[in-house]
Amino acid sequence: MTELWRERPVGIVGLGLIGGSLALDLRAHGARVHALVHRQTTAQRAIERGLADRIATDSQVLVDCDLVVLALPLDRLLNPAPALLEALPAGAVLTDVGSVKAPVLDRWQPLWPRFVAGHPMAGTALAGVEAGQRELFKGRPWVATPAAETDPEALEQVKALAEVVGARWITCAAAAHDRAVALISHLPVLVSAALLLAADHAAPDPELAGLVRALASSGFADTTRVGGGNPELGTLMATHNQAALGEALLAYGQQLGALQALVQQGRFDQLEASLRLAQELRPPFL
Amino acid sequence: MTELWRERPVGIVGLGLIGGSLALDLRAHGARVHALVHRQTTAQRAIERGLADRIATDSQVLVDCDLVVLALPLDRLLNPAPALLEALPAGAVLTDVGSVKAPVLDRWQPLWPRFVAGHPMAGTALAGVEAGQRELFKGRPWVATPAAETDPEALEQVKALAEVVGARWITCAAAAHDRAVALISHLPVLVSAALLLAADHAAPDPELAGLVRALASSGFADTTRVGGGNPELGTLMATHNQAALGEALLAYGQQLGALQALVQQGRFDQLEASLRLAQELRPPFL
Repeated sequence: MTELWRERPVGIVGLGLIGGSLALDLRAHGARVHALVHRQTTAQRAIERGLADRIATDSQVLVDCDLVVLALPLDRLLNPAPALLEALPAGAVLTDVGSVKAPVLDRWQPLWPRFVAGHPMAGTALAGVEAGQRELFKGRPWVATPAAETDPEALEQVKALAEVVGARWITCAAAAHDRAVALISHLPVLVSAALLLAADHAAPDPELAGLVRALASSGFADTTRVGGGNPELGTLMATHNQAALGEALLAYGQQLGALQALVQQGRFDQLEASLRLAQELRPPFL
Repeated sequence: MTELWRERPVGIVGLGLIGGSLALDLRAHGARVHALVHRQTTAQRAIERGLADRIATDSQVLVDCDLVVLALPLDRLLNPAPALLEALPAGAVLTDVGSVKAPVLDRWQPLWPRFVAGHPMAGTALAGVEAGQRELFKGRPWVATPAAETDPEALEQVKALAEVVGARWITCAAAAHDRAVALISHLPVLVSAALLLAADHAAPDPELAGLVRALASSGFADTTRVGGGNPELGTLMATHNQAALGEALLAYGQQLGALQALVQQGRFDQLEASLRLAQELRPPFL
């Protein structure tokens, strides 16, 4: 099998953190990249940064591509512009990078026979045309969630793309992916945001409010990092992974409620046993 | 006023992370340090590390000290050994480093007229005689919680000690301290531990369990760091700050419950507003 990224230009729709980083890595590996972006100002800046070989706001830029990556925010991915749908080259392998997979598969599988649902799990705090960087995907998971209808050859093409940028290829069912990311990615955002809201709300008088801010240390900073992140991104994840996130919140509430009961009832031996279990559980996640 | 640490040896009871670090810094600033430790093996290792000028398991080692720091774990601080009480030099300024202040003040103020309740807020993941390090306190808060009965001159002596090791001196009421650390230090431990327990418990089948561990990224690692920490320490904090931690858990539950309701009811505009507020709240804590 020939890897499409070696033969013909790879199309990338969107040059934000993921699209821009992928474009830079592919070019560094000798691929040609043709990119479609939404705004003329983005195109100009992307050209200045050398993110791709051809960059345009006109969807004709994708015409020669046999492999196209939709590196769009989740809302635009789930509600694609009609002009984008018309511009995708018939017969191309098409994949996405969305952080939720079941709704993406539901939307795109019926539209596009050679669609592969994917999720490269790499990120920084940055977004937009300035965010793309080399080696973002190195050693990070790139999850694909093939359905029964997924073209096996298209899946292999996307795998080759993931591997050339150094990602770890993982496949699983879309529902399993969405449950997993609800637990380890979307739930932490709400858990962490609630901590910021509580630390503010429970210290209403100025003296205590000043004190909590003066005394907060690296532990508080770490625990609140994801909760203090991009609100649009957190909301998109919640919107499109609502059911799995709801289940994760229920599971979380049970665990926290159990710890809370141990504190209230003064059952500190059992609290220590729970904290010991948490300590033992953590290393395999790292 | 003469700073006691310049004149006569400073006594330190316990050479763990806080006691050992304080001893190293004081010696580097020209003070003599006499240290009392619990076990002969600790004394031997502390002598090898050069943590203090004199180190012994016999409380006579403190006899010349006009300023003594109790750098003991909270349980031993609140239930001091009779031999320790007998060995403290009469008239000395006495201070502690415990992470909860109201119970410490209740215990020690009636016992010792020149007692000052203190809490240097510095830490690493380490503990024990190997943990002490230079400049642990630099730029970190050192909180004192004087009571109406606290000797002002004793308070000044402890302030001088904190400042010589580069800490930021802060005073507040013991109850305010305990409420603040419940919110920014003790609550995060439970919030974070519950996330580890939920991520484990909500993925009971081996496939999903493997997936959550494979996909967990730096966000999950950060949010769970303090929850995966020392279980004894977390339990001691909960035990001795039970009421304030209980209130903090209630406040947290209300905030998380509100976010959960927004997700369940699909009120995503309001969810985004809450996440935006969390984002805005965070920088003043850092």
